[in-house]
Amino acid sequence: MTLPRHASEETIASRLDRFAIETPSWGYADTGTRFGKFLQAAAATTTEEKLADAGQVHRFTGCCPTVAVHVLWDFPEGQDPATVAACAITCGVRIGSINPNVFQDQCYKFGSLGNRDEAVRRRAIDHICRSIAIGEAVGSDLLSLWFADGSNYPGQVSIRRRKRWFAEGLREIHESMPAGMRMLLEYKPFEPAFYHTDIADWGMAYALARHAGPRARVLVDTGHHLPGSNIEQIVAFLIDEDMLGGFHFNDRKYADDDLTMGSIDPYQLFRIFFEITSAERDRGADLDIAYMIDQSHNLKPKIEAMIQSVLAAQGLFTRALLVDHEALEQARRQDDVVAAERVLLDAYETDVRPFLAEYRRARSIPEDPLTAFRESGYSAAAAAERGPRKKSDGGAYA
Amino acid sequence: MTLPRHASEETIASRLDRFAIETPSWGYADTGTRFGKFLQAAAATTTEEKLADAGQVHRFTGCCPTVAVHVLWDFPEGQDPATVAACAITCGVRIGSINPNVFQDQCYKFGSLGNRDEAVRRRAIDHICRSIAIGEAVGSDLLSLWFADGSNYPGQVSIRRRKRWFAEGLREIHESMPAGMRMLLEYKPFEPAFYHTDIADWGMAYALARHAGPRARVLVDTGHHLPGSNIEQIVAFLIDEDMLGGFHFNDRKYADDDLTMGSIDPYQLFRIFFEITSAERDRGADLDIAYMIDQSHNLKPKIEAMIQSVLAAQGLFTRALLVDHEALEQARRQDDVVAAERVLLDAYETDVRPFLAEYRRARSIPEDPLTAFRESGYSAAAAAERGPRKKSDGGAYA
Amino acid sequence: MTLPRHASEETIASRLDRFAIETPSWGYADTGTRFGKFLQAAAATTTEEKLADAGQVHRFTGCCPTVAVHVLWDFPEGQDPATVAACAITCGVRIGSINPNVFQDQCYKFGSLGNRDEAVRRRAIDHICRSIAIGEAVGSDLLSLWFADGSNYPGQVSIRRRKRWFAEGLREIHESMPAGMRMLLEYKPFEPAFYHTDIADWGMAYALARHAGPRARVLVDTGHHLPGSNIEQIVAFLIDEDMLGGFHFNDRKYADDDLTMGSIDPYQLFRIFFEITSAERDRGADLDIAYMIDQSHNLKPKIEAMIQSVLAAQGLFTRALLVDHEALEQARRQDDVVAAERVLLDAYETDVRPFLAEYRRARSIPEDPLTAFRESGYSAAAAAERGPRKKSDGGAYA
Amino acid sequence: MTLPRHASEETIASRLDRFAIETPSWGYADTGTRFGKFLQAAAATTTEEKLADAGQVHRFTGCCPTVAVHVLWDFPEGQDPATVAACAITCGVRIGSINPNVFQDQCYKFGSLGNRDEAVRRRAIDHICRSIAIGEAVGSDLLSLWFADGSNYPGQVSIRRRKRWFAEGLREIHESMPAGMRMLLEYKPFEPAFYHTDIADWGMAYALARHAGPRARVLVDTGHHLPGSNIEQIVAFLIDEDMLGGFHFNDRKYADDDLTMGSIDPYQLFRIFFEITSAERDRGADLDIAYMIDQSHNLKPKIEAMIQSVLAAQGLFTRALLVDHEALEQARRQDDVVAAERVLLDAYETDVRPFLAEYRRARSIPEDPLTAFRESGYSAAAAAERGPRKKSDGGAYA
Repeated sequence: MTLPRHASEETIASRLDRFAIETPSWGYADTGTRFGKFLQAAAATTTEEKLADAGQVHRFTGCCPTVAVHVLWDFPEGQDPATVAACAITCGVRIGSINPNVFQDQCYKFGSLGNRDEAVRRRAIDHICRSIAIGEAVGSDLLSLWFADGSNYPGQVSIRRRKRWFAEGLREIHESMPAGMRMLLEYKPFEPAFYHTDIADWGMAYALARHAGPRARVLVDTGHHLPGSNIEQIVAFLIDEDMLGGFHFNDRKYADDDLTMGSIDPYQLFRIFFEITSAERDRGADLDIAYMIDQSHNLKPKIEAMIQSVLAAQGLFTRALLVDHEALEQARRQDDVVAAERVLLDAYETDVRPFLAEYRRARSIPEDPLTAFRESGYSAAAAAERGPRKKSDGGAYA
Repeated sequence: MTLPRHASEETIASRLDRFAIETPSWGYADTGTRFGKFLQAAAATTTEEKLADAGQVHRFTGCCPTVAVHVLWDFPEGQDPATVAACAITCGVRIGSINPNVFQDQCYKFGSLGNRDEAVRRRAIDHICRSIAIGEAVGSDLLSLWFADGSNYPGQVSIRRRKRWFAEGLREIHESMPAGMRMLLEYKPFEPAFYHTDIADWGMAYALARHAGPRARVLVDTGHHLPGSNIEQIVAFLIDEDMLGGFHFNDRKYADDDLTMGSIDPYQLFRIFFEITSAERDRGADLDIAYMIDQSHNLKPKIEAMIQSVLAAQGLFTRALLVDHEALEQARRQDDVVAAERVLLDAYETDVRPFLAEYRRARSIPEDPLTAFRESGYSAAAAAERGPRKKSDGGAYA
Repeated sequence: MTLPRHASEETIASRLDRFAIETPSWGYADTGTRFGKFLQAAAATTTEEKLADAGQVHRFTGCCPTVAVHVLWDFPEGQDPATVAACAITCGVRIGSINPNVFQDQCYKFGSLGNRDEAVRRRAIDHICRSIAIGEAVGSDLLSLWFADGSNYPGQVSIRRRKRWFAEGLREIHESMPAGMRMLLEYKPFEPAFYHTDIADWGMAYALARHAGPRARVLVDTGHHLPGSNIEQIVAFLIDEDMLGGFHFNDRKYADDDLTMGSIDPYQLFRIFFEITSAERDRGADLDIAYMIDQSHNLKPKIEAMIQSVLAAQGLFTRALLVDHEALEQARRQDDVVAAERVLLDAYETDVRPFLAEYRRARSIPEDPLTAFRESGYSAAAAAERGPRKKSDGGAYA
Repeated sequence: MTLPRHASEETIASRLDRFAIETPSWGYADTGTRFGKFLQAAAATTTEEKLADAGQVHRFTGCCPTVAVHVLWDFPEGQDPATVAACAITCGVRIGSINPNVFQDQCYKFGSLGNRDEAVRRRAIDHICRSIAIGEAVGSDLLSLWFADGSNYPGQVSIRRRKRWFAEGLREIHESMPAGMRMLLEYKPFEPAFYHTDIADWGMAYALARHAGPRARVLVDTGHHLPGSNIEQIVAFLIDEDMLGGFHFNDRKYADDDLTMGSIDPYQLFRIFFEITSAERDRGADLDIAYMIDQSHNLKPKIEAMIQSVLAAQGLFTRALLVDHEALEQARRQDDVVAAERVLLDAYETDVRPFLAEYRRARSIPEDPLTAFRESGYSAAAAAERGPRKKSDGGAYA
């Protein structure tokens, strides 16, 4: 085996056993950019197909037991939520976080919880409360909230008034949650709003979560930051404030590019995991963080992309676990910047692929999940069945 | 009148008479983001409606005599281009630049001129050559090229090989152009490609335009720059190299936000116009630059947004014409930074609205084009007629 | 007069009478970049000269009655603070905010309040407590804190541990403040630290200020944001949380460029003032915000640059006061984005120079402060006296 | 050994033998930021000390045989350049690229080659011509040019006029170069100029280098880009245009942070090397590129930081050499994005430390150069000798 001497394979393997990543139902469907959507014959269309695909990812990786669901797309009005939960079980997965959608309907053109029209705000809150009920019905304890609310032009709205509507609405939603449920509040600097976004950064999410109630936490989407943001510092800060609720993982080079994990800046993801594993070491316990993938790209096959992200996450999390904390402490005590940095790099540069292959073998998971999935023939079968039903529907343009 | 003493109203009015801005046919249609499209009852759907709307903008502003057309959307195969040209005339406008589309079809998933598949490259070139023919048929002398080509992941493609395919393709296209036609080559750092874009910045457009042939120029879209770019410097540099072909105007705060002109950073637009008017002053002649609007937003009514942009452009161009170049030269000769900057600000801070009202009155254009258009009832009529035909078609998601 | 009809000249003039901007003593000295410092013969060297120069700015603008002081540079150990306060009075100004310096001494190489060495943390706290005492001695009620603390390399420090040291230190400092004093906590994303900065954004400053105590507030330096940040939204958010303490004003295009106010993006500054004046209108009272200039450039003459900034601030604040809030409300109530934006632009595009000239004349201040100062001969005299004493001392390089 | 099967250890080792990195004399001296300079007792002060330190880096790494020199600091007027060259030989290194300095003297406050004052332009050109002569005298064939020229405020200068002065000056300089010398032209978006920088991006450097003459090339400083720039694409583009002359290596998170190589984004550096090694593979020959380090930080010990950078470069270059080009080609031929990316990641994730240890051992270089240097006692001796001579000289502030 190739792990450095100070690392305990057993401890690492045991922590990996408790490292699960949730995949999103919408990540199995065709997506695109405003310039158009490139269809994949094998991509899922129905909720059943999405859950089946998620089941494949779990089957080949062993660490994706839950699926984030999108209320609007996965739980059409009038359908019994239990059906979806049962379907998930059939596919070998469970329902994870519940994601309401208050951005797509035409009524949300000028916002949801921040809309100046009380009726629209009411409708948004009601939809979220219905989502909470669905969550209860399917055994989920996570309400994951993203708001597209914002404005496109200076003067268009009153920023302060909307902030108050958000505070009020979130308080009401928090009160509607059952005792065991947590609210995760996401932030994003821009897109689809291009002048101001009501919850634009972690500070706003933090303040609003505090105002909402004791079970509200901040959700960090790694793609939702301005250029240069030190995301691992935000993570460390939120951990220390006991306000980090979870992640939406993806990678990016420019804006919210929604690429697969670790594809652009793997060292950054390693550093995020390093902050988490350091805090866990200090506390002697795992942190209660929801790890979720939220990527949206249109070139890679959906299931393969998801497996690739999961493997990247697992590999980088493992490397973060390899950090020699004692050596690090010693270097830091002497302000030995070179040595301290070297400790991190030593962990990062370790090739953990052999270890992970053995780890998987011991758990009856394919050593190389991606190749195994490719060889399973699942995609070809899905393409044959699903492809003929598809037709392009253009982009947001023209 | 309120213009400063050194300014000649007559000279300014005369230059304004020669300041025309082209509006794009696609700017009158519903657009959106990947998260969805908010429909406007009054927005145009057909090419006829788009031209009619463009005619309104020209009627109320007097300076938008031409319309940029999109070959794929405005000139369906099999239709006589002359019909569209005739329709434009009926609406009080003419056909301006020709914009091929080699990004929307499924075959362009991995690129057009940069596609590794020769058949796709051929198809893209053929489409552009057909566009040239349409341009000739409708009397256009501008071929405006934007390529969405790029890649999303490191390693996905050979950047150098694609660059050569682009160079070859553009040369062939250049050779296909009639003697009086110019090629405008646009650049963009990202979106829809998120790792690399084949023509990512002005330097790449400049080099490729040089390689393409003597009638190729660079097109500057004001929204297509990385944060911090000094756009007016790029403009000045390209002017000095005789390589500036035209503009796609819009404003932005974050990425390619495609907001209306001057809505976020009006002083920047003023500085761009200042570089142009300075160069024209030095040469004693207007520069041959195509001024075009290319904005895409989904909250403002389309025609009003276009009028607003045109008015912003006209106002800022007028203020650029107010710069006291003699005072500026004197300050510069003494490295008097404070005084030099003050000269620019004196022009920028001048309220040109009264002058422009009088300018318009003298040309039988409404003094306040936006209000006049609003009072015309055109939008209500369009909404009544067009609205019932519309239905939402979702975003790029789900 | 040229103000729009809905605006009350009296109300605006009265608000302007209460709009004071503090200038910084260090803003009158030579500064530079790491590549070198270009000396100005007339720039101040001693505290007396700085106060004299600040007095000039107040004399010619009438709205800069206080001067921010830098403890390390303006109050050398062993000197009676009252001397400096008396000197200020002689120069026609008063001492404003107190700015400790815990970044320049060699002991702060690895931080001040965040230093792993308790002795250094103690020294930093002691220096700040001494600054508080100086503040009391000279009648200042503002403690303005900026920390350069951070790290340059991943792994170098424990981000969370340093955060706690900061929380502790700030609490102790807060307790040391007399009842009438307020603490302003500044944030900055980077420079001089290049990997992580302990107080990197407004969210961190907000959380730490909350932890510090009830008289701690956030200080917004307009140059301390990542590209794309919506500063006016941060301002609005902090106002609504009652956590906005003050500003360090300057302008920037790239990073913390420290240019004069309004020189790069005047519309942004207008929007910041609009958020403030809107909130004041809602509350029916002025907000308790400390307006301070903190610019550092090396090309413009120091006093002229300061006057220019003050005039820019006054002009843009005046224009913000011109916003027609009733028209704005009406537009917002109808989601009329075009009209709402137009209300802001109507105020912004108003030429307030004639009004301000009259405003000044009525208060016996020169109508054109910059020209009046230039004609006063002060700079030439200062250069003659101060210049010969200067010698270049290189940059941070070589 | 741990290299993947397709890789030839011999080929890789042989390419590494031809991979040399130049270190800069100024990188061994104390530097800082505008906020101050933290002194290191062991840092070099004199040219002799700098060359001695550079000799240590070469001694312990075996791949830094040349030293970039700074004319102003290393070759004071009146001294025989041959002395410096001889001193270098004594230290086990040779003189590499020649770097004129036309930014530090007070006369360059408003620019050098772009200065409106012909006398200053002449002085700058003369200094550069003297640098060329020094280069000839010491056997250097590389003239490396960085210009701090720019402006801080809109209107301050004529961008176009300065561009022409630059074009003229560079042509004259090119003509002054002996036949075997190459000119490398650097670009930088901002700092120390904060509004416009005369050579702001690669496109401007490219165009000006073309105008200068056939032996002018572009120099890429990895820290001199706007956020989001795809540097490896610029590298690939320049290679294809035969216009890439060399690199100034360093790493950054925000602006021109000048951190050690690979400390923030090692995968990006890998991708840059991948573009180079790919092109070399296509051509069957090494590219003629000057690899130089230009970092400036003030926390790490200078020599250690340099060794760390060299090791990072060597490690990432080695990993780039591990890319399985045949597998990559196959994946690309099928538009198999997942597999193509995987090929890159497989190389990147390989732990090359054992291979490099063996590579070094075979060449009688310490397997772990950093530890070996630390154990050599050189730094302690240098500190003891140099430290007492030092005194702090403040920053650019106050």
